[in-house]
Amino acid sequence: MSRSSYFQPHIDRLAGYVPGEQPREGGFIKLNTNENPYPPSPRALEAVVAALTDRLRLYPDPTGTAFRQAAARLHGVDLNMILAGNGSDDLLTIITRAFAGPGELLVYPTPSYILYRTLAELQDARSAEVSFAPDWTLDPEAFAVPGARLAFLANPNSPSGTSLSPGQVARLAERLDCPLIVDEAYADFADSDCVALVAEHANVIVTRSFSKGYSLAGLRLGYLIARPEMVAGLNKVKDSYNCDTLSLAAGAAALADRARQDETRSKIVATRRRLTDAMRGFGYNVPESEANFIWCMGGPPAAGVYQALKERKILVRLMRYPGLADGLRITVGTDAEIDCLLEAFGEILSSG
Amino acid sequence: MSRSSYFQPHIDRLAGYVPGEQPREGGFIKLNTNENPYPPSPRALEAVVAALTDRLRLYPDPTGTAFRQAAARLHGVDLNMILAGNGSDDLLTIITRAFAGPGELLVYPTPSYILYRTLAELQDARSAEVSFAPDWTLDPEAFAVPGARLAFLANPNSPSGTSLSPGQVARLAERLDCPLIVDEAYADFADSDCVALVAEHANVIVTRSFSKGYSLAGLRLGYLIARPEMVAGLNKVKDSYNCDTLSLAAGAAALADRARQDETRSKIVATRRRLTDAMRGFGYNVPESEANFIWCMGGPPAAGVYQALKERKILVRLMRYPGLADGLRITVGTDAEIDCLLEAFGEILSSG
Repeated sequence: MSRSSYFQPHIDRLAGYVPGEQPREGGFIKLNTNENPYPPSPRALEAVVAALTDRLRLYPDPTGTAFRQAAARLHGVDLNMILAGNGSDDLLTIITRAFAGPGELLVYPTPSYILYRTLAELQDARSAEVSFAPDWTLDPEAFAVPGARLAFLANPNSPSGTSLSPGQVARLAERLDCPLIVDEAYADFADSDCVALVAEHANVIVTRSFSKGYSLAGLRLGYLIARPEMVAGLNKVKDSYNCDTLSLAAGAAALADRARQDETRSKIVATRRRLTDAMRGFGYNVPESEANFIWCMGGPPAAGVYQALKERKILVRLMRYPGLADGLRITVGTDAEIDCLLEAFGEILSSG
Repeated sequence: MSRSSYFQPHIDRLAGYVPGEQPREGGFIKLNTNENPYPPSPRALEAVVAALTDRLRLYPDPTGTAFRQAAARLHGVDLNMILAGNGSDDLLTIITRAFAGPGELLVYPTPSYILYRTLAELQDARSAEVSFAPDWTLDPEAFAVPGARLAFLANPNSPSGTSLSPGQVARLAERLDCPLIVDEAYADFADSDCVALVAEHANVIVTRSFSKGYSLAGLRLGYLIARPEMVAGLNKVKDSYNCDTLSLAAGAAALADRARQDETRSKIVATRRRLTDAMRGFGYNVPESEANFIWCMGGPPAAGVYQALKERKILVRLMRYPGLADGLRITVGTDAEIDCLLEAFGEILSSG
């Protein structure tokens, strides 16, 4: 062993993505990682039990056909337009490897999901971060950075919660000469989505997650919707058996339970309204959110409030972006959790 | 869209890894993908049921601490020497991305696990394939190809089933100036393993799977054992939540059920003996296997036998390697399955 490190130099340089805190002890009100406060569909859990047989000794269907059929049916697209992933993170990794080599350019907005930068760094690719306009729109000319090989757009966006309309996203896709990944992890809480754009734009790939809208973050399942030639190429990059038997079964059942999905969504949208208004009342600038969290800027200093809440066993996410003041990203919990949060906020602000 | 393809050129060139046939209709005796014929530990299934709660709405522990504790305990190593993966395929992908960039060199023996070449191709890396000696050993001088950035060794090897001793593997590690991945997917059926080498060789990484020895191929779980600095670096490359809550729970329970493991192993080792002797009786050259399959060379032509078995709804794996005659890789099934296979063999050979 003559070298100081066996790792590629860009891996050694990496700090690594730091996911939100997952406290091991209980008793926390967790409003920091955008998990859904409501339980998953009972049908999803029943599907796991039904799949929990000696057949687990066998490999899963490599492409998860039955699951993809459920997703294709839901979105009214062909089976060969769906690819399943081990969470949408797996799909974002597959996409990055497929389209952007070392030294090549990825583009994404800022502030947005901080994983995009990590994905670029892992691939030893370069990043161009394009700022949102003050009204949280994106200028298609500015976003189409020359030479970009891949563009990510979280829509709804994190941390802002804001969403571009399908028409606005279409204009981004038209202007780009590379794939545009519309990361719809939060679309289950939004007023619209971009699935229909796939039919008209060969470069649009829409990704979906079961972690937020379906309350199944523990299962790791996601899928993407894209043109068949895109799916075929990405299929070569994924691990052969990237999704397990139990998750695939649960995912198909969860997709089919629309009543559950509608009920959970309605509750979160109503609580989001109340939380947004209350935080504005505390003096924060809160953009109108289409996700299951809100982003609080300005107002009482975020770092102090974050810490004071944590001492009260309430976890929110303190988000720091270069050139922006600290902000708090708060997941929309149950009404009872939000009541606790607002009460704590009142105490902290009156004692501060 | 002005380009003919958005994919990186090396991705467009890829044929893609083709996993073994997974027939959708039932009724097949499946001896083609080295699945374990015996059911998983009941404790593993019970652990899934216990984890099947509303807590699935929460993300898993990003590093699977409880599972890693079980693996660390089993192997007598520190917790920070274990990394969990979504099957050992996930770990092999993470390793390849960490150590070998585009144009860099991977080395592995031939004939061996054909995924290694795919991993190199996905990374746009080069491959050096080093032939086994006729006695299935490897010359350390030949294996240490100058400039190699990563070496893979399936041990026991597929398709041969043969195994290098820990001493022989140690000599490979000493000679290499890069990480040596000892892929122990089949070590649960072998006479020895290389975990102890990690303590003495900073470049050794041992990978393990639940797909074979633990009858949990459907769950997608594996882990690796390496020096803490190796684990820390690889941890930066993995997806944040690469293992799901249910698999981690099942894996910890399966590791703890040693009685089950010993029983399954004994049965497979006994059946392997009987299958090996019978296939030699049919005129095949069968190396002594330490895995849950055997490799049949020479003898009655493999392609015809493969097809005739398939017509009788018995699937074995027809393996083709450049420069080698076709061979049959046959998974060690239950005694009843192997009786069916041998009976079919007798019929096919007498009718041929």
